[in-house]
Amino acid sequence: MDTSKRFKSNGGCPSIQCLVNREVLCQEPAQGVTTAAHRVEKRGATPCLFGQGGTCCRNCNMGPCQIIEGVEEMIGICGATASTVAARNFARIVAAGTASHSDHARETVLAFIATAKGETPYEIKDTLKLRRMAAWLGIDPAEKDIQQLALEVGETALAEFGKQEGSLHFIRRAPQKRQEIWQELGVVPRGIDREVVETMHRTHMGVDQDFRHIFRQAARCALADGWGGSMLATELQDIMFGTPVPIRTVVNLGVLKEDMVNITVHGHEPVLAEALAMAAQDPEIIAEAKKVGAKGINLAGICCTGNEILMRRGIPIAGSFVQQEIALTTGAVEAMVVDVQCVMQSLPEIARCFHTEVITTSDRAEIVGATHVPFDHHRALEVAKDIVRRAIARFPKRGKVYIPKAKMDVVAGFSHETILYIQGGRFRASYKPLNDNIINGRILGVAAIVGCDNFRIQDEVHVELAKELIANNVLVLTTGCAATGLGRAGLLSPEAAELAGEGLREVLEAVGCPPVLHMGSCVDNSRILIAATEMVRTGGLGEDISDLPAIGCAPQWMSEKAIAIGQYFVASGASVVFGPTFPTTKSQEATDHLFKEMEEIYGARWFLAKEAKDFASIMIDQIRQKRKALGLDKKRERVLFDMAMRRQLDTPLQGVGCHGPTT
Amino acid sequence: MDTSKRFKSNGGCPSIQCLVNREVLCQEPAQGVTTAAHRVEKRGATPCLFGQGGTCCRNCNMGPCQIIEGVEEMIGICGATASTVAARNFARIVAAGTASHSDHARETVLAFIATAKGETPYEIKDTLKLRRMAAWLGIDPAEKDIQQLALEVGETALAEFGKQEGSLHFIRRAPQKRQEIWQELGVVPRGIDREVVETMHRTHMGVDQDFRHIFRQAARCALADGWGGSMLATELQDIMFGTPVPIRTVVNLGVLKEDMVNITVHGHEPVLAEALAMAAQDPEIIAEAKKVGAKGINLAGICCTGNEILMRRGIPIAGSFVQQEIALTTGAVEAMVVDVQCVMQSLPEIARCFHTEVITTSDRAEIVGATHVPFDHHRALEVAKDIVRRAIARFPKRGKVYIPKAKMDVVAGFSHETILYIQGGRFRASYKPLNDNIINGRILGVAAIVGCDNFRIQDEVHVELAKELIANNVLVLTTGCAATGLGRAGLLSPEAAELAGEGLREVLEAVGCPPVLHMGSCVDNSRILIAATEMVRTGGLGEDISDLPAIGCAPQWMSEKAIAIGQYFVASGASVVFGPTFPTTKSQEATDHLFKEMEEIYGARWFLAKEAKDFASIMIDQIRQKRKALGLDKKRERVLFDMAMRRQLDTPLQGVGCHGPTT
Repeated sequence: MDTSKRFKSNGGCPSIQCLVNREVLCQEPAQGVTTAAHRVEKRGATPCLFGQGGTCCRNCNMGPCQIIEGVEEMIGICGATASTVAARNFARIVAAGTASHSDHARETVLAFIATAKGETPYEIKDTLKLRRMAAWLGIDPAEKDIQQLALEVGETALAEFGKQEGSLHFIRRAPQKRQEIWQELGVVPRGIDREVVETMHRTHMGVDQDFRHIFRQAARCALADGWGGSMLATELQDIMFGTPVPIRTVVNLGVLKEDMVNITVHGHEPVLAEALAMAAQDPEIIAEAKKVGAKGINLAGICCTGNEILMRRGIPIAGSFVQQEIALTTGAVEAMVVDVQCVMQSLPEIARCFHTEVITTSDRAEIVGATHVPFDHHRALEVAKDIVRRAIARFPKRGKVYIPKAKMDVVAGFSHETILYIQGGRFRASYKPLNDNIINGRILGVAAIVGCDNFRIQDEVHVELAKELIANNVLVLTTGCAATGLGRAGLLSPEAAELAGEGLREVLEAVGCPPVLHMGSCVDNSRILIAATEMVRTGGLGEDISDLPAIGCAPQWMSEKAIAIGQYFVASGASVVFGPTFPTTKSQEATDHLFKEMEEIYGARWFLAKEAKDFASIMIDQIRQKRKALGLDKKRERVLFDMAMRRQLDTPLQGVGCHGPTT
Repeated sequence: MDTSKRFKSNGGCPSIQCLVNREVLCQEPAQGVTTAAHRVEKRGATPCLFGQGGTCCRNCNMGPCQIIEGVEEMIGICGATASTVAARNFARIVAAGTASHSDHARETVLAFIATAKGETPYEIKDTLKLRRMAAWLGIDPAEKDIQQLALEVGETALAEFGKQEGSLHFIRRAPQKRQEIWQELGVVPRGIDREVVETMHRTHMGVDQDFRHIFRQAARCALADGWGGSMLATELQDIMFGTPVPIRTVVNLGVLKEDMVNITVHGHEPVLAEALAMAAQDPEIIAEAKKVGAKGINLAGICCTGNEILMRRGIPIAGSFVQQEIALTTGAVEAMVVDVQCVMQSLPEIARCFHTEVITTSDRAEIVGATHVPFDHHRALEVAKDIVRRAIARFPKRGKVYIPKAKMDVVAGFSHETILYIQGGRFRASYKPLNDNIINGRILGVAAIVGCDNFRIQDEVHVELAKELIANNVLVLTTGCAATGLGRAGLLSPEAAELAGEGLREVLEAVGCPPVLHMGSCVDNSRILIAATEMVRTGGLGEDISDLPAIGCAPQWMSEKAIAIGQYFVASGASVVFGPTFPTTKSQEATDHLFKEMEEIYGARWFLAKEAKDFASIMIDQIRQKRKALGLDKKRERVLFDMAMRRQLDTPLQGVGCHGPTT
C-alpha cells in the first residue's frame, strides 16, 4: 500500500505529535493498518460544538436539546438553561471520573484484604505506611500483628465506599483551614459511592437546576475521588507493592526487544501487572521462552499500568495513551494485556494485522475481538503464567517487525515520601528545605503537569511547557501519560537539571534530582494533595493549600478522570489550567463560576489555555501572585541546604500532620 | 398579547396532547407566558439524530464522535463502534435512572430510621408489612417491639445501598427460576450504589467495549433499581404512610379551587407531601387561611409526589408532568412545592408572571429563581407549616385566574396487597381468581402502561392504547404520569368497565373494579414485579415471570428512569414496548441485542412502537403467544368467581412466596 495516499498532510506521513509514532507508521509493518491518527485526519474538526462546549442536553427523551446561552427560545424544552445543562454535563463527567478511579480503588482494596488473609502472592511490604494508614482510618495499630492490622485496614477502607453518613476518613489529612472551608460549604464527602450516585441523581432531568448548586455537588463528588478513591488506591498499592523510591529506567517504543517475547501491560490497575512481573522472572517460564527462540520475556508498560510498575519495579514503559496502537504496529508485541480504562477498542482490529493477541483480564472490561482471560487476585500467579505462556506461543508467528531506536533514560519513583527523604534525609525527612528554597526564591514555586495525551492535539505541549517552567525555576511534578511524554523528551533525568533556571538548578544539583519529578499514575495525583498539605504543615507558605505558590495543569486532557482530578484540585485550593478545550465553554455563566467564582469560594479556580506559552504564562503568573500574597516577592537571602544543615532541621517527622503517627 | 401569533399551528392554540392544557393556554391569564408547548413548536424536530439514536459519544475529550454504523471510518477516534457507544449511552441512562430511584429510596430509608426512633411526625402504620419486610431482610421479628423492629429494618435497608459484596436481600423475592437465570448470568446486584458506580466506570473511555457485556451490567444495575432501590422505597413508604387501599378521588386541573389557597406538591418523594397534608388540616392553619379570605387549604398533586398522596390520602392530582406549567398558568396556585425529579426549570420563570411562589425543599435540588425552604424529616411538620403559611400570604396577591372545569373521578390505591384482597377476599387474599380467569380465558392477560408523558408527543397514546387493551380483555395496570393521563380520560373508574371486552367486564363487575388499576408512582413499578411474582407462585401460569401472558409499555417515556424500569422489567422476564423513539436505534447491532438476543437470554425483550394501534397489536400478540406456550389458546370453561367460591380457595396466604411470613 502506498503510504502517501493514506494521509493528506505531511508528505504521506501522519501529522501527529509524537515523532516516534510517525516513524513507526511510515514503516512497512504499519502498511494497511488504520490508527487513530488516520481517523483524526479523516474526521477533521469536532462535529458538534454544543457537545464539546457542554450545552447539548441528552438527559431526557424530549431532547437532545442544543442550548444557546442568551437566546430565550433556545433553552431546553423543560426550561433548562445553558448554565444548568453545562453544569449537569460537567458534574456527570466528574461522576464518571470519580467512579473510574474509585472502582479501581475498590479492586485494590479487595486484593488488599485477600493479601492480608494470605490468599494472594502479594505481601504487606510497607509496614510503616500500614501503621500510618491504620491511624488515619481510626484503627489502633498497637499490639496487632501485621496481617491482622492489614485486614482491619482493608475492611475499614472497603467501608469507605459504602458509607452512608459521616465523612471519609482521609478528609482529616487535609489542612485544618481547608477542612473548615469544606465543612462550611457542605462539600465534605460521605461515602465514595454515595457521592457518585447522588451526582447522577441530581443531574437527572428536573432535579438540581441551579448551576452553582450542581457544581458544589461536583466538588463533593470530586473530593470523594481525590481524598477518597484515588488516595485509597495509592496508599494501599504502596503498602502491598512497595512505596516507590527513585529508580532508573527507560521509556519509549525502543524498549521493545527484537529477540525477546514482548508483553505490554496496559490500563490502570497494577494488581495483574505485578503478578505478570513475577511470572516473567520465573525460570521455568524463561526456559519455555528460550525453547521458542526468544532470549526471555520483556515486559513493557503502556499508560498508567505502565506507570505503576515503572515506579515500583523499574519496568520500562513502551508508550503513553497515544502510543498504544503504535506499539502493536511495530509487529513486535506478542501480547497486549489490558485491565481497565483508556484501552482503545481499535486494538484487536490492529492486532489482527499481526500475530499479536489482545488479552482482556478484568471482569469489568471485555473487548470484541480480544481474548478474555479472567484475572482473579486469588490465583494471580496462575493467571499471569497462563498469559505469559500465551504470549510465548505467539512468538514463533512474528512477521515483519520495526522497532524504533528511540528510548530515553528516566528516573521515576518520586512518591511524596521520597520527596521528603530527598529533601530532608532519611531520619529527618521534611519539606523544610523545599519550603525554604521557595521562601528564599531559589525555587519560584511548584507546578504539576498531569493527565492524558490526546490524538486531537498535534503539539508537544507538555514538553514545551515543562521546559519553560523549569527555566523559570518552577519545580515540576508529573503523573500519568504527561509523565511518559516528559520522559520521552528526557526531562525525567537528573541531567535535565541543566535546562532549569539558576536557582532551581542549584537545588537540583545539590540533591541529584531531575527537574521534573515523576509521581506516578493518575490515581497518584492524590500524592500531590498530600505533598501540598505537607508543604502547608511545614510552615512559612501560609495556612492552606490555596496559599501555596503552586498550580496544576492538564494541557492535553482526554479522559473524564482528568476533569474529576481538576475539580478535586480546585476544591482543595489548588488552581488548574486545562486545555485546549473545556467542557463548559458554551455557557459563560457556568464557565464564570468555575473560572471566577470558585476562586472566591475555594481560593482556587480553573483556567483555560491552548498553547504551551499560554499555559506557562498563566502558571508562572499565578505562582508569582501567590508569592506576593505571602510577601515573598522581595529578595531574600538564598541558602543552599547541604547535608549538615539538613540534619539540623527542627521539624523531624513526628506523629503529626498528614503522616499521622509514625510508630 | 394576540394568541394567534404565539402558535403557528392550530388556529393560534398549541397543538398539544392534553386538551385541558390547550384550554388554559388560550385563556387570558396565560397570555405572555411561554411554556414547553411554545418551545417544542419553535424548536421543531430533534436537532441531532446521533444523540437521539445513541451513537453520539461524548465520553472523552477527543469527541464528540458521531458514529455511523457500518461506515469503517465513522467509528470513534478510539475505535469505539456504534454498538459500543450505543450500549454505553444506554447503560449510563440506566445508571442515572437507578441512581434517581435509589437516592429517593435512601431519603425514604433515612426518614424511616428517624421515624423508628420517634424523631418524626410519621408513624409505623403497616405493622404487618413491617414484619414481612423484616423477614425478607433476614431479621427475626420475634419478641421485638414495633419501634425496635422498624429500626432494625431501617438500618438493614440502609446497608443495602452501601453493600460491597453478596447480593441484595429482595432479590430472593423473585421466582426461583428467575433467580437461577440471574445467578448464571452473573447479574445479581451486589450493593445498589456499587452497581451504579461500576456502570459509570465501565462506560468510561476505554473500559468495557463489548456491547453485550455492557448491556449485561446495565441489567445488573437496573435490577438493583427494581428489586433494590425502588422496592425499598415502595415498601418502606407503605409501612410509614400506609399501604394503599382503593380510594375514590379526582384528577385534572379542575381540582384547583378558586376560593381556597392552592398548594401543588410536585416531584417524587412523599415525605414532605405527607407532612404538608398534616399541616393543611391543622385548625390553626385553616384559621389563618380564612383570615386572608380563603375557605381553607387545597392541596393538589403533580407528577409522582401527586401519585403518592393520591394513593394513600385521596388527595386530588392537578396534573401530570406535562401539566406542571399549566397548573401555574391558571393563576390560581399560591405555592408550587417541589422535591426531586421531573420538575421543570421553567417553573420559576412562569411563576414570575403570577403571584405564585415556587418552593424547592430538597438539599439535592435547587432552582434559580425559586425560594429554597430546606426540608428535614426531623422537623417535618414545622417546615410544612412554614411552607403553608408562605402560600397563605400569597393568596391576597392573586391576579387573573382561569381554572378549567375538567376533572374526573378515579379510584386509585391498587397496591399488590389490594389486588390480592380484591381477588380473594381479606382472609383468603390470593391471585388464584385472577390466574383462573386468565386460564379460563375471561381475562386474556395483563398489561402495564407506565412511565411519563412527553411534550414531544401530540397524541393521547396512553388512552387509545388502554381502551384497545381492555376491549381485548386485557387487564391494565398503570403507574406514574401514564396513570394520571388514564385517570383524566375516565379509565380509572369502575364505570369504565363497560369499555372492556365481555370476559374482562364480567370479572370487573363481579368485584366492582376499574379496568385500569392505578398502582402508584414510578418507584411503585416494583409493585408490578411483586404482583407478577405472586401470579407465578399462585400457579397455572408457568414457573417464571417470562411465562406469564403479561407485558409492559411506556409509550411516552421521557425520563432516564423509564429506561431503567424497562431494563429491570426485561431482565426480570417481562417484555416491554417503548416509543416513539428509542436510545439505541442508530446501532442495529445494539438494538438487536435488546430486541432479539435478550429474549434468548432473559426470556423477554424490548419492542419499539410509535402509535397506539402498534403498541396494542404488539402487546396483544405477545400475550397470545405466551398463552399459546402455556397451552391456553384452546377454549376453556369460564367460571365467574363469587364470594362463596372465593371463600373456598385452597391457597390462603401463608408464610410463603413473595409475602414472607405473615406473623
